[in-house]
Amino acid sequence: MTATVHLVGAGPGDPDLITVKGRRLIENCDALVYDALVNPAMLDWVKDGCQLIYVGKRSGNHVCPQGQIEDILVGLARSGLEVVRLKGGDPFVFGRGGEEAERLREEHIPFTVVPAVTAALAGAAHIGIPVTHRKHSASVTFISGHEAPGKQESGINWEHHVKSGATLCLYMSIGRLPQIVENLVAAGMSAETPAAVVQWASTSRQRHVVSALESLPFVVVREKIASPAIVIIGDVAQYANTLSWFDPSKQAEWGQQSRPVVKMDASRGGLGLFS
Amino acid sequence: MTATVHLVGAGPGDPDLITVKGRRLIENCDALVYDALVNPAMLDWVKDGCQLIYVGKRSGNHVCPQGQIEDILVGLARSGLEVVRLKGGDPFVFGRGGEEAERLREEHIPFTVVPAVTAALAGAAHIGIPVTHRKHSASVTFISGHEAPGKQESGINWEHHVKSGATLCLYMSIGRLPQIVENLVAAGMSAETPAAVVQWASTSRQRHVVSALESLPFVVVREKIASPAIVIIGDVAQYANTLSWFDPSKQAEWGQQSRPVVKMDASRGGLGLFS
Repeated sequence: MTATVHLVGAGPGDPDLITVKGRRLIENCDALVYDALVNPAMLDWVKDGCQLIYVGKRSGNHVCPQGQIEDILVGLARSGLEVVRLKGGDPFVFGRGGEEAERLREEHIPFTVVPAVTAALAGAAHIGIPVTHRKHSASVTFISGHEAPGKQESGINWEHHVKSGATLCLYMSIGRLPQIVENLVAAGMSAETPAAVVQWASTSRQRHVVSALESLPFVVVREKIASPAIVIIGDVAQYANTLSWFDPSKQAEWGQQSRPVVKMDASRGGLGLFS
Repeated sequence: MTATVHLVGAGPGDPDLITVKGRRLIENCDALVYDALVNPAMLDWVKDGCQLIYVGKRSGNHVCPQGQIEDILVGLARSGLEVVRLKGGDPFVFGRGGEEAERLREEHIPFTVVPAVTAALAGAAHIGIPVTHRKHSASVTFISGHEAPGKQESGINWEHHVKSGATLCLYMSIGRLPQIVENLVAAGMSAETPAAVVQWASTSRQRHVVSALESLPFVVVREKIASPAIVIIGDVAQYANTLSWFDPSKQAEWGQQSRPVVKMDASRGGLGLFS
């Protein structure tokens, strides 16, 4: 009998920022298919005998093509295993969760979607930035700096994003920051606009910088801020100067948790190629 | 000794969609200050003797002015009570969480922020809409239809939001939907653009509609969809026709949980005005 695939968002990094529902599904699933940006501490939650299947990718280095990930989900569910597909952040924000849901529907496999704290909101919260504020902005936009290679139109309408007045939160953009800042200023955004970058938000490795927009690329290089990071641009970013409250030194070390390797069981179900 | 105020997002409705961290803070706090859009089931999680203080408001009907809410938080923390300020959705998305954090900082009261699944992402997830999609949209914008009364500029730059190409998610907008749709079409958005509205997302009361943009106000009235609701506009909204997976009839009834009223203790700390 075909089992269900749960598309679960892992949230931003701190394992306690997953939803109660997401954690329960991980604890009860028969197979956990997970990405690079999932905190390894979450792998300890599975029951004995659960298959752990890594399909992670980091930009430019695809461990497992998207179609193959979908094949794995379909195969596991068809073999009767309850599957959690665990994705960093929210499954439907820059996560290809939609494509996975489409495939599952095409294959008549039952699925659910468990939303999560998306990286931009977690990053903002952990450095004290309210992404909307009655005095400053009544809208907020999430933009991916990393677009599909085959996409027809050449990208992001920076001009209209700037003129919309929305707080801008950029995902997967840190490598293209100089060009993005140039685009924003060319589109009419003040070079003095407050801007912040937060890396590894909500974890013991969290670091952030705040500066004027035009200085941001320089500051990011100087402070060696790299991916995974979220860029937040707009008047509200100034609040990171006064409201940043989070102390990374009080957090458990990412990846320091001991993890029983015996839970890895590549033989079961014959689909452990990436475990 | 001054205690800490935790600004905690309750998430979208289903109590299991709060974060693990948020739930733990509720279970351990001495005072819970909560809004109208918080699921009452969460009030059962507090320990014995915890103060429950209702400061809810629904549009146009302010039970408790914002300044007074902040006074309550300050007073509770100064009296040594660990406070959870529980807000529907995410505390920093259209929630005045930023204003509360500012006030706490001014008063030198320690605070933390616990982000949450924001209503738009939960609403989209529960009707199968990936708010971003490689084929359709590389950005998503959250807009509040309900702006600060005293705000200088007359509102939302619909033209630039439309031209940005972002998926648009509208909060607190259902009452102004005819005018908003008119604005969007005037700004150049196709009247045929797919659009969806989801009410009470993730709960047993969830309902949704999908239609072409121009028909949406009519459909919403015909189907009696009202607040609290999220409007999602853009090509991705079409996926609600094929990927909607959630069955409200399988959810626990909102508010049906028995709740021990004895936990309400207005006398303690002298601040139970709104309990």
